Amino acid sequence: MSRAIKVELENRSYDIIIGSGAINKLSNFLSDNKYSKIFVINDNNVAKLHLKTLQEVLQKIDIPTEFVITEAGEQTKSFVFLEKICEEILSKGLDRKSLVIAFGGGVIGDLSGFIASILVRGIDFVQVPTTLLAAVDSSVGGKTAINSKSGKNLIGTFYQPKLVLCDLNFLKTLSQRELRCGYAEVVKYGFIRDLEFFEFLEKNYQKVFQYDEEILEKIIRRSCEVKAEIVAKDEKESGERALLNFGHTFGHVFETETNYSDLILHGEAVALGMVMAAKMSQNLNMISENDFLRIKNHIEDCGFITDEKKLKADWNYDNLISHLYKDKKNEGKNLTFILLEKIGVGVVKKAVELQEFRKVLFGL
Amino acid sequence: MSRAIKVELENRSYDIIIGSGAINKLSNFLSDNKYSKIFVINDNNVAKLHLKTLQEVLQKIDIPTEFVITEAGEQTKSFVFLEKICEEILSKGLDRKSLVIAFGGGVIGDLSGFIASILVRGIDFVQVPTTLLAAVDSSVGGKTAINSKSGKNLIGTFYQPKLVLCDLNFLKTLSQRELRCGYAEVVKYGFIRDLEFFEFLEKNYQKVFQYDEEILEKIIRRSCEVKAEIVAKDEKESGERALLNFGHTFGHVFETETNYSDLILHGEAVALGMVMAAKMSQNLNMISENDFLRIKNHIEDCGFITDEKKLKADWNYDNLISHLYKDKKNEGKNLTFILLEKIGVGVVKKAVELQEFRKVLFGL
Repeated sequence: MSRAIKVELENRSYDIIIGSGAINKLSNFLSDNKYSKIFVINDNNVAKLHLKTLQEVLQKIDIPTEFVITEAGEQTKSFVFLEKICEEILSKGLDRKSLVIAFGGGVIGDLSGFIASILVRGIDFVQVPTTLLAAVDSSVGGKTAINSKSGKNLIGTFYQPKLVLCDLNFLKTLSQRELRCGYAEVVKYGFIRDLEFFEFLEKNYQKVFQYDEEILEKIIRRSCEVKAEIVAKDEKESGERALLNFGHTFGHVFETETNYSDLILHGEAVALGMVMAAKMSQNLNMISENDFLRIKNHIEDCGFITDEKKLKADWNYDNLISHLYKDKKNEGKNLTFILLEKIGVGVVKKAVELQEFRKVLFGL
Repeated sequence: MSRAIKVELENRSYDIIIGSGAINKLSNFLSDNKYSKIFVINDNNVAKLHLKTLQEVLQKIDIPTEFVITEAGEQTKSFVFLEKICEEILSKGLDRKSLVIAFGGGVIGDLSGFIASILVRGIDFVQVPTTLLAAVDSSVGGKTAINSKSGKNLIGTFYQPKLVLCDLNFLKTLSQRELRCGYAEVVKYGFIRDLEFFEFLEKNYQKVFQYDEEILEKIIRRSCEVKAEIVAKDEKESGERALLNFGHTFGHVFETETNYSDLILHGEAVALGMVMAAKMSQNLNMISENDFLRIKNHIEDCGFITDEKKLKADWNYDNLISHLYKDKKNEGKNLTFILLEKIGVGVVKKAVELQEFRKVLFGL
């Protein structure tokens, strides 16, 4: 296991530790901090596969531990489960020196982080991502959230974990579809920030899907480095951090319209959204057709759908537009998109005409 | 109207403006900040009495405004209303430059502040307290919350308002009982921090209940000064801020047991709790019997009940103890109380024996 990545946020700084067996580093952290009680939040899928591993680590430490096992799936990021889990934890008794461990994918991470941030107005929490998506995206940076009827992630807090432990062993049970979803966020860092990394991915992406440990560690590390650097500069997304939203503006629209169902998962929506954002960049003469095709081809090579009509023939375009207007980056009625100046350089583009969105969708 | 009180919290600093007609200062604030939309959260009681006044101020400013009118009462500080109001606001469309105005008493302030802190991960909010209790306590200091089945204010955030406007005109419609509830928090500042202020209150408390504007302004100002000073030193209650909880440890126990009903309102619970905390201080040889009686007599002179058996004959003492153990100040199974070293000097007392709580309750 190589050195930790540091997210630099003054008194809220923390380490990301990546590697096979990284979970064992939890002991050191718990010995250094005096927690009164630990609440592990987990979903029943991950619990079946990996909870035993975590339990073995926790058994070596003499701190009372409670396990909160919830349902798996995006519907867990809702007021219903927020209330349920908060009440369950409170009824079991917690104090300000209690710790939450978010043990799972992005849904568990976002929800548990939100819960940790509001229980007795905030207690410490540790992220232990068990998916590639969570490892490279949601577990780092302190965005917590649940979904609203009006859209994804519209309710939440900025609340940093105290530690992120990314153990590669947990990734071995992921399906190809789950790996792909995580990969969408990985390649995003290449598109918005690092051409060289994208080139590396073009050469090596197949090894990701073969669970090659060395490649996985490398791409997770580089993804976390880029994210940590951006978050350190702009924790609360007043500017640059919005770049991380590349592909998400379009993606959220499709996720919202399909009620966050299995029809299109978050990473798949982001992949589709990145192709659309690249197309918009081309339409606005920001990138060449060649660059657009290079992006689109790579996304397709990874097995993603890049045409929304292949998902579903009959989209309600008025609905899609109405979801678009609820994007958090918009200012009043002015639409904001994250676009590309070239591969490796993302930009925040404000006051984009609705017409440009239509053009990408209808291919006008 | 005299000068503003400043709550010093670096980039989260803000002003408290107190006086008759203070609400008109909202125009200046809104001219200085470019908000895209305003959401006024209000309960139907206050709406009937005072919303017109606020609307008149807002009409002078060209910003789209939505009014969210909710039920009055402590039950509003719940997951049910949290979800309802968040979804209502999101469905009306908001962005990160939207503003929440909390227009009402402590319940509206706590709930609206919490909502502002979690909508799109935090938007600005302004507190316009319409009760004495909110003016001197909940509107200042950035504690937001809803209640849990396990106890009061167990779910929330630390989130500072951008401005507090305390207009004395709103206080004129308060009942004697409501004034009394606010007064409990006022006299608390004397007990924990300022003997001279307590002496002033002993001489002048009757004028408060006669709505004497000069006295009201003076006591609100001094209360906010003390609170602002304590909050500036310890925003997230890692130490000194816990002093503001004087009387609340006992008080919350009774409020929880009576389901936050009208049987005992928050201020009444705090008043009863302060007498109990003073008694505990006497039992532990921290203050004299004379000082205890001076406190108790003043509280009684104001019309508060100082013996819980006069409220209800048949308390379930096991329940009370179980509520006590859920107090946020406790560390594991160690009870923490806020006690008095003398009148004007509060202290955080950790690791208090349960026996001491029983002694105060049963008068053993």
